[in-house]
Amino acid sequence: MLHGLMMDAPLSIHSLIEHAAKFHGKTEIVSRSVEGPIHRYTYEDSHARVGKLANALRRLGVAPGDRIATLAWNGYRHFELYYAISGMGAVCHTINPRLFHDQIAYIVNHAGDRLIFLDLTFVALLEPLQDELPGVEGYVVMTDREHMPETNLKGAISYEELIEGESDQFAWPDLDERAAASLCYTSGTTGNPRGALFTHRSTVLHSFAIALPEIFSLSTRSVMMPAVPMFHVNAWGLPYACPMTGAKLVLPGPRYDGEAVHELMETEAVNTCAGVPTVWGMLLEYLRKSGKALSHKPSVVIGGAAPPLSMIKGFEEEYGCNVYHAWGMTEMSPVGTCGKLPPSMDDLSKDERYAVKIKQGRAIYGVEMKIVDGDGNALPHDGKAFGELLVRGPWVISAYFEDEESTAAAFDGGWFHTGDVSTIDEDGFMQIVDRSKDVIKSGGEWISSITIENTAMGHPGVTEAAVIGIHHPKWDERPLLVVVPAGDQPPAPADLIEYLSASVPKWWLPDDVVFVEELPHTATGKVSKKQLRERLESHRLPTA
Amino acid sequence: MLHGLMMDAPLSIHSLIEHAAKFHGKTEIVSRSVEGPIHRYTYEDSHARVGKLANALRRLGVAPGDRIATLAWNGYRHFELYYAISGMGAVCHTINPRLFHDQIAYIVNHAGDRLIFLDLTFVALLEPLQDELPGVEGYVVMTDREHMPETNLKGAISYEELIEGESDQFAWPDLDERAAASLCYTSGTTGNPRGALFTHRSTVLHSFAIALPEIFSLSTRSVMMPAVPMFHVNAWGLPYACPMTGAKLVLPGPRYDGEAVHELMETEAVNTCAGVPTVWGMLLEYLRKSGKALSHKPSVVIGGAAPPLSMIKGFEEEYGCNVYHAWGMTEMSPVGTCGKLPPSMDDLSKDERYAVKIKQGRAIYGVEMKIVDGDGNALPHDGKAFGELLVRGPWVISAYFEDEESTAAAFDGGWFHTGDVSTIDEDGFMQIVDRSKDVIKSGGEWISSITIENTAMGHPGVTEAAVIGIHHPKWDERPLLVVVPAGDQPPAPADLIEYLSASVPKWWLPDDVVFVEELPHTATGKVSKKQLRERLESHRLPTA
Repeated sequence: MLHGLMMDAPLSIHSLIEHAAKFHGKTEIVSRSVEGPIHRYTYEDSHARVGKLANALRRLGVAPGDRIATLAWNGYRHFELYYAISGMGAVCHTINPRLFHDQIAYIVNHAGDRLIFLDLTFVALLEPLQDELPGVEGYVVMTDREHMPETNLKGAISYEELIEGESDQFAWPDLDERAAASLCYTSGTTGNPRGALFTHRSTVLHSFAIALPEIFSLSTRSVMMPAVPMFHVNAWGLPYACPMTGAKLVLPGPRYDGEAVHELMETEAVNTCAGVPTVWGMLLEYLRKSGKALSHKPSVVIGGAAPPLSMIKGFEEEYGCNVYHAWGMTEMSPVGTCGKLPPSMDDLSKDERYAVKIKQGRAIYGVEMKIVDGDGNALPHDGKAFGELLVRGPWVISAYFEDEESTAAAFDGGWFHTGDVSTIDEDGFMQIVDRSKDVIKSGGEWISSITIENTAMGHPGVTEAAVIGIHHPKWDERPLLVVVPAGDQPPAPADLIEYLSASVPKWWLPDDVVFVEELPHTATGKVSKKQLRERLESHRLPTA
Repeated sequence: MLHGLMMDAPLSIHSLIEHAAKFHGKTEIVSRSVEGPIHRYTYEDSHARVGKLANALRRLGVAPGDRIATLAWNGYRHFELYYAISGMGAVCHTINPRLFHDQIAYIVNHAGDRLIFLDLTFVALLEPLQDELPGVEGYVVMTDREHMPETNLKGAISYEELIEGESDQFAWPDLDERAAASLCYTSGTTGNPRGALFTHRSTVLHSFAIALPEIFSLSTRSVMMPAVPMFHVNAWGLPYACPMTGAKLVLPGPRYDGEAVHELMETEAVNTCAGVPTVWGMLLEYLRKSGKALSHKPSVVIGGAAPPLSMIKGFEEEYGCNVYHAWGMTEMSPVGTCGKLPPSMDDLSKDERYAVKIKQGRAIYGVEMKIVDGDGNALPHDGKAFGELLVRGPWVISAYFEDEESTAAAFDGGWFHTGDVSTIDEDGFMQIVDRSKDVIKSGGEWISSITIENTAMGHPGVTEAAVIGIHHPKWDERPLLVVVPAGDQPPAPADLIEYLSASVPKWWLPDDVVFVEELPHTATGKVSKKQLRERLESHRLPTA
């Protein structure tokens, strides 16, 4: 190999805020504070306080590689923690406060967090939990002296008291770009949460990729509001990509209700924003009820879950926004695809365009993607063949943090197994058709449970439907349709099968139909196929 | 150090074209061919031919690290060479055909090129030169059998003949991202040309950076015409950044005249383009003479040399384009700064905006920049202090290829010394005020020769002016003004000094004035300060 002759300049998170302070020094970060008022300052101001915080952390004995946790909303102090912790070589561990308390305890102990920085909101959450967190040496409440509450949290101190008196100059170390920089746990429906340990390199590369015009299109012209929490995979990387590009950041703090989100969008002239369907649903409802508009016609990026078509239509047709869906996973930093339509689709009809817009989108550069059958053979990009979705690339994790079992289950041959079953069409648009554990394996072929469910839901006699695979001696598995009937009198099973046969292949038709009063649901409102399978484990198909 | 847990996926040039083929497969590359007709195909087609070419190169015994040269215009075959050569692990060495013949010979021999791929245009150039290129094993003429000329070039074969019959499948190797990928020589006014040896890593990172909205803003909506040759620092990286982002590429082939460039811009709906002032000057002249318009109102990026203000105004005010200046160097891959104005300048007057537009622009993320005085102390960003411009970052070279002397002269303390003397203003906009070898060092302070020259040129009695430093026993150097008078009767020296004193600091005023019939010029039309200094070496200042 002939080595090239380029500077060995490691990619670093500190370089992002340093660049912003130097070249976009007067650009603002606007935050709704937990204390109430709107807080505003600049990248230059922020960089100075990041320096103070790093000095304070060093004074507390924080060393490279140490995990420092945050339990906080989107705000300027949380932003400072991102940069001070990672910049000094430690690991910023963002905790999702919406998890069950025992999951939070598991995560803090598994990560080995030494300190926890928490917003005022979460004092009451952590006080009763602290006895279960023996490794935590102290708690910093992200407020000032004036707002500091009475608390029995060990060594509790306010953030402002912690950093006051510190110098804003810090000798930022030259870090290996593969050093750990941040840690985020993903909680599945089963088992313990699993940690994704991101690096400086992966964070900077992911920032470049998502700032491109085809994805978030970030520049000095952008006013970006991440309405996705900074504890959700680092707010999809936006707190890193905005300083890189000189975009103004608008952080909505603890309030995700339609009124609060709308107010900030209007007063700060937000022209691009990102969030989950739940948040945008609340905003849409608020807009309709209040009769208010979105004056700056922002681009609305929806991720975290597939948006209903009605939501895309609502923002586009009623409020003049450009809406697109992006897909990713915690394990992918998180962005993997983006659903912007290429110019070759400009002449499609509105409905044809919507049919593409509800897909998960095309892989962004840097994310390799393939769909494979049960034997690992790559399937064609024809929009029909579906198989398990595998991804790889420099911002995809290679293992879960100290979790050999989960790692062994999800990684094989250099690829991460997403657990999703997808199609990819001729234009490269990926669409998720099922979870791999829910897909029904019948005679070596796969049947999409979601497709059958969505079709069955169209029948007037069906309120809710779920399809699961039931063991079959010949075919291995065959589909069972479980229905919550709409009226007192359930429809005839033969009627339902007849209805389905107009839309799904004959060999996909369920071998049996079961009527139930209600389906089991998870905490997030999805049908729990796992519970349903357990409940119907002993069901015997008439064809068996 | 705690290692993060991210996939060790090396950045690679092959991944760019592979991504384009998979996700932007139908997007076109349009080329004006050397043979005459317009050629068009897609990224998918291109990728297949890149595979064939790589197989042909392997058949010829090309091994990783080998240097393979090109002497070619911007066209699809040259594009294929970029990807086949670098993708298989060899080094694509682009040669500037406009260099003196002995420089070309020096470069080919210094690089150790094994093969040369050349456009039809350059057969006559290389035939008489080949005896001086003993290491070159063969020549491939970038055309088909039908257009293949009679030639005595060693082992001459046409490109199409070379690749026909090869498979389009190639097992692309997993390369170290720090492996050499391409080589480009830069020729100064003195000494031999010096080689910059780029890596896969530096190329991909530079692609990300220049594709951002603040620089070239590349996406599937872009139709980009690099009107800068692919032998000029890889056409500023655009042949890499376009496939990354799915942008359509329009390659102007051998014709840079206004008519040809305009024709392609219109027929292909070019909406963004990049080139040197000479090319844009020819286009502007053609537009004015022909009365034609630029229907697609492209963004025009001007680099390679500072554009005159009249050119920026011409494109913006007469043709509705958005023009901005970008600055870089071969040693920087090349892009270092870009002159797009941030929204904070939207309220400036037109003239104030132009005053910013003629500056070199702000550092793009990834390029660190500082200005230092003679002792290496960093100077403030106040738009006034000027010092030598130093840069560093992952796409800045760390050394010249096999050239210890030039390397020793240009690198110090991890920074590349650009040889430019600059200011940086409060908004981060850098402006070059002199070359460091031309700046006058007077009593430890620096005087900008260019500022005095530009002021002197405003005097009605002056046709051309140059300022050089002359040895002074007390001050080390003092400025001497050399003037080509406008009329038969030169202006009085005291008059000239009086005139200058209205605009430049008193201590900058030249200690003497010399009148000459003409100034020495370089091949590119610039005043040769080197020759002027030699000619006036023995000049004795009256103040000495």
